[in-house]
Amino acid sequence: MLVSELGEFGVIAHINELIKRENLPANPIWNNIVIGIGDDTAVLKNAKGWQLATTDCLVQNVHFHLEITSWEELGWKAIAVNLSDIAAMGGIPLYALVSLTLPFTTTVANITELYGGMIHIANEFGVAIIGGNIAAAPSLTLHITLLGTSPHKKTLTRSAAKPGDLIGLTGYTGLSAAGLAMFDGKLSFEPSTIQMLRQAHLKPMPRVKEGQLLNDLGITTAIDISDGLIADLTHVCQASKVSAVIKETALPVHPVLKKEFAKTYMDLILSGGEDYELLFTASSALMTRAVQALKCKTTVIGEITAQQSDPVTIMTDEGKMKRPINSGWDHFKSK
Amino acid sequence: MLVSELGEFGVIAHINELIKRENLPANPIWNNIVIGIGDDTAVLKNAKGWQLATTDCLVQNVHFHLEITSWEELGWKAIAVNLSDIAAMGGIPLYALVSLTLPFTTTVANITELYGGMIHIANEFGVAIIGGNIAAAPSLTLHITLLGTSPHKKTLTRSAAKPGDLIGLTGYTGLSAAGLAMFDGKLSFEPSTIQMLRQAHLKPMPRVKEGQLLNDLGITTAIDISDGLIADLTHVCQASKVSAVIKETALPVHPVLKKEFAKTYMDLILSGGEDYELLFTASSALMTRAVQALKCKTTVIGEITAQQSDPVTIMTDEGKMKRPINSGWDHFKSK
Repeated sequence: MLVSELGEFGVIAHINELIKRENLPANPIWNNIVIGIGDDTAVLKNAKGWQLATTDCLVQNVHFHLEITSWEELGWKAIAVNLSDIAAMGGIPLYALVSLTLPFTTTVANITELYGGMIHIANEFGVAIIGGNIAAAPSLTLHITLLGTSPHKKTLTRSAAKPGDLIGLTGYTGLSAAGLAMFDGKLSFEPSTIQMLRQAHLKPMPRVKEGQLLNDLGITTAIDISDGLIADLTHVCQASKVSAVIKETALPVHPVLKKEFAKTYMDLILSGGEDYELLFTASSALMTRAVQALKCKTTVIGEITAQQSDPVTIMTDEGKMKRPINSGWDHFKSK
Repeated sequence: MLVSELGEFGVIAHINELIKRENLPANPIWNNIVIGIGDDTAVLKNAKGWQLATTDCLVQNVHFHLEITSWEELGWKAIAVNLSDIAAMGGIPLYALVSLTLPFTTTVANITELYGGMIHIANEFGVAIIGGNIAAAPSLTLHITLLGTSPHKKTLTRSAAKPGDLIGLTGYTGLSAAGLAMFDGKLSFEPSTIQMLRQAHLKPMPRVKEGQLLNDLGITTAIDISDGLIADLTHVCQASKVSAVIKETALPVHPVLKKEFAKTYMDLILSGGEDYELLFTASSALMTRAVQALKCKTTVIGEITAQQSDPVTIMTDEGKMKRPINSGWDHFKSK
């Protein structure tokens, strides 16, 4: 059977099963592992607090095209997507390891720009780049490992959502996918719109401080929007064994999306990936506190329910319930 | 300027310079970093001891060819090369993160075999696989990040060799390169020789326990042989600002190399990479203790001297001094 038949998440489940069964079974080392495979980052106990460790990669012509991305933007995004995984746990990022494969056509100026982008965002979030590896290869890939901490000895996870929780969302979704559509379709907009969509797609700003604040407030469930709003909410529902109802009218719609993508904006909002916003769930009282405390736009978009046959349902403005059409990104399945 | 003009180690030096100058300059986080870019692993201080973090990758058709390597061997080797970096610091490996790019032709059976190999060697050395990432890509790459510890609050490094130190080497070098030559040249040998060379090239056994013993004994300088004996000794000499003399007659010559590679064995021993043996330096008294304590074959192959124009010189059996011809592997330079 091909991995493309099983899909990305089927492959991860298969790997998880192999490791559970065969990797040091019954060894006390697993007592130190608070969260292993299946969440945004791994969480390890140590003497001082909890350590976070996450890894993510960008692959040329899969995650990015050098025709539209500068090396500086690429460096930024490679670190940003890992920061977002630490943000989704409410952690503090500390150290990065950078493993690169570089084609022979790479110039030293490319490397300077690439590290310029990485260092820029690393500095923004207090991260030190402490090591890595480089190798020659036919195409450019960036694998980043980010280490962090959670001094509270607790983290946000995907698996703690409870029926009755409200669902909160920072910022807007769909802008990164709109940026990609702009590049793919060679769409032309006002300079300020082009700039904003380019930034959303190529230089996302991870919600690191917001994740820490949620963790501080005692919120327990969060995920970052990397695969798409519906897809990532589905991950939360599956891990928490609950379902969710999203109110279509409550979704935050960025004015640029409504204006420039009049026919497709709802699809972009629900299924566009790589926004790196945080989706979180909390009791009504805690949600009110979170919305007040967060400095960014935060919207309550729906509610967690007991587990139904569909993980996520959308309530339309007429009060009808419908299934989402497009469930988001899977690396081994075509959309 | 292309990275191929600067070479792998020139690029690393360039990256190191950028980070030193621009990544959180004067931020106290750097006080926690005992060893950063340029050694086998990064070393971080924490409350309990020292934390080690290393990353390495294997790229299809650069580091391996699926025509000769099984997925099980590939999984083994991907973890082994990282274990060897922890071994070179005298550390204890603990946790692995696995970031894979998989072509669409990958089967679920391939994944099962790959993780079979990873889990086999992880179990051998007490390592738990705690997370990772998978993405689709045109070719197969394996990026592993390994976290470990050094409870002594000290590690072996490349940079502590002193004139007068003797140079010790575990096991034999050249066997992995001989294995590669066997595959490349479609050479035919006795089954036991084929098996041994295949194992040396595809399933190397990192010297993790030996590295820990060296660290326990108070030895301070070591490196693992990944680029080749001369190349890795050169790395030690450059980092320690010393030179080295190797006695040709003292080098351990595996009988299979002498028999089957009669014309090229000395080149394989001096320049073949990927043996994952440990090279270390120590005062004469400490070297005697190390040779006695190590359970594997260990050979004193030369001596550290004050810095000369050549980092490494070879003394022939007639007592003549010569320069090594081939200085080992550089990812961005052709041999």
